[in-house]
Amino acid sequence: MREVAIVAAGMTRFGELWESSLRDLFVEAADEALRAAKVDRVDAIYVGNMAAGQFVGQEHLGPLMADALGMAGVAATRVESACASGGAALRCAFLDVASGASDLVIASGVEKMTDGADTTAILATAADQEREAYHGITFPGLYAMIARAHMKAFGTTEEDLAWVSVKNHRHGARNPKAQFRREVKLEEVMASTMVSDPLRLLHCSPVSDGAAAVLLCPLDQASKYTDRPIVIRGSGLATATMALADRRDLAFLDAVRLSAEKAYKMAKVNPSDIHLAEVHDCFSIAEICCIEALGLVEKGQGGRAAREGITALGGKIPVNTSGGLKSKGHPVGATGIAQAIEVYEQLAGKAGDRQVAKARFGLAQNMGGSGASSVVHVFERV
Amino acid sequence: MREVAIVAAGMTRFGELWESSLRDLFVEAADEALRAAKVDRVDAIYVGNMAAGQFVGQEHLGPLMADALGMAGVAATRVESACASGGAALRCAFLDVASGASDLVIASGVEKMTDGADTTAILATAADQEREAYHGITFPGLYAMIARAHMKAFGTTEEDLAWVSVKNHRHGARNPKAQFRREVKLEEVMASTMVSDPLRLLHCSPVSDGAAAVLLCPLDQASKYTDRPIVIRGSGLATATMALADRRDLAFLDAVRLSAEKAYKMAKVNPSDIHLAEVHDCFSIAEICCIEALGLVEKGQGGRAAREGITALGGKIPVNTSGGLKSKGHPVGATGIAQAIEVYEQLAGKAGDRQVAKARFGLAQNMGGSGASSVVHVFERV
Repeated sequence: MREVAIVAAGMTRFGELWESSLRDLFVEAADEALRAAKVDRVDAIYVGNMAAGQFVGQEHLGPLMADALGMAGVAATRVESACASGGAALRCAFLDVASGASDLVIASGVEKMTDGADTTAILATAADQEREAYHGITFPGLYAMIARAHMKAFGTTEEDLAWVSVKNHRHGARNPKAQFRREVKLEEVMASTMVSDPLRLLHCSPVSDGAAAVLLCPLDQASKYTDRPIVIRGSGLATATMALADRRDLAFLDAVRLSAEKAYKMAKVNPSDIHLAEVHDCFSIAEICCIEALGLVEKGQGGRAAREGITALGGKIPVNTSGGLKSKGHPVGATGIAQAIEVYEQLAGKAGDRQVAKARFGLAQNMGGSGASSVVHVFERV
Repeated sequence: MREVAIVAAGMTRFGELWESSLRDLFVEAADEALRAAKVDRVDAIYVGNMAAGQFVGQEHLGPLMADALGMAGVAATRVESACASGGAALRCAFLDVASGASDLVIASGVEKMTDGADTTAILATAADQEREAYHGITFPGLYAMIARAHMKAFGTTEEDLAWVSVKNHRHGARNPKAQFRREVKLEEVMASTMVSDPLRLLHCSPVSDGAAAVLLCPLDQASKYTDRPIVIRGSGLATATMALADRRDLAFLDAVRLSAEKAYKMAKVNPSDIHLAEVHDCFSIAEICCIEALGLVEKGQGGRAAREGITALGGKIPVNTSGGLKSKGHPVGATGIAQAIEVYEQLAGKAGDRQVAKARFGLAQNMGGSGASSVVHVFERV
């Protein structure tokens, strides 16, 4: 297996981007990455996207995006794993380069969610249609049950949940690409509208448009494109039961644990080697469960992490320095790539006001559904 | 890159399968493959599917299907490239095994099209939404324009088109898994209802439910599962402009040519080495254009091929011995895998009444949209 590096990145601002179509968003992000590497042709493109068929009536995004980029002809494929579509696309691109089949590959993600579709219902098609969505439950409800289970098992409080949002908005205020570039106070989060008890509006990631792209190549070719390549040392993808009701423990995300174990093993690192992480905080409880399943904190200790500053910029293990899904925004298909970009920029020393000092290993964890799929990548500065 | 083999296969009958859900179909096909290889666990699953989100309100098929198979935990990802989703999933699985990341992988495809959805409109989301589908054109219209261009350029006749259907129904009558197991006469095809001039009902593949799965592993591990592995020698994926109006030549499928060139090069073969081929006959004109672009017949000579028996069982280069999409059925996400299964069974000497004698190299070509994406795999009996 060849060593694979990220050599360039591009992304749109995340937000309600009424002036840009699905294809505009993709082209803006991919073009930024191509310009950074000074190339105008690649061997293959992977497009992470959850539901453009439902959102804007467009499947078949591989050729559509290759064509829009002026590259009709090149191999191009869409990859879908609900909100983990970006991470899954990155993994497919990684395997393509690692295998030796392709030398220069775009791994990307895009979603256009604000064009008037019934967003919550469409997102619910990432749950088990016959056993969950059909009966009326949507994701705020599913994650609220996870939150209640975590509170009951470990004494996690509503204030613990709120601190995750406060931290991530504080980080996101420093990210020029974030949807919400403002801080929120603990009291604001605690007083925001109840969506699904105990989850309030400011515990929920927003509906967003956006795209992100990274350029991958074998490490031994990276110097053609950049003087600061970041190596993908580990890649792990795992699943859990589709329906939340089938889990052995509502408060623990088995797919996250499994995907992390695979990625750590491939990278030959332990959780304690990781200097920063982007994790899938679609709801504040998700960040708490993810950092436990990733082994970044002990099981049951996730609730304290944001409150005590452990996961803040400057803390022991900074989590979601980009602002996370909560503040940066969550165009579902693009999120996994945007996470990889934050880690790439941090390790390459390009993270501006959010820079974590002396980071060598970083991690990105992207999740689909109520944790039915998870993808983890471990990156290293070389 | 490791050598990769197919060691087992399974598929449902194709047709209007009212009693089976999307998940039932997948499980039936995958279970058949697993039983054939006597295994109950794999490292990864790739699910080719075009539009379950639109057809049955279900995205996130990776974990859904892993779970339904009793394998919650394993890596599982959906891959989409419209009607080439199966071929694209096979390629991702191939790269996964070739890279060394996984040892035993299911490449599968599934589609549930008959559950009352607006099928033609959903299929049109594989075209360019903003520049084609929005204006009302659907696939019969797009392929009719390709047919007219081919007729004008090469003198291809309506009877030439009809012979493709006659041949494929003759083949499909011998396939126990085919949707239409009956022969049709030339006069029947010529007299069938006009759908989009010059394409009549019996030039069009049907709407189908179905699933198909193959099991891949490194060639040097194949003896654990079978005594007749079939090697994937070449894999090529390519694209063309999304909108038909942008093509340099309406009557020639550039993506098919490009994907074939890549696959032939990897396999170190020429078109003349191929003993049988499954090609994407979503409409009869598509088979004509595909065999030209694959180099199986000369450019402009595709129209003669079925009429003169060149592509019939017993002919110089048998094409679509399975019955093709026309007679076997076309559950869009499953088609690419079903094609690979026909070639696998032919090369392994398991094709029953349809057996081609002494075939060593076989080819499967799967296409999305009006030829905006194409995937070609070359297989060898070893």
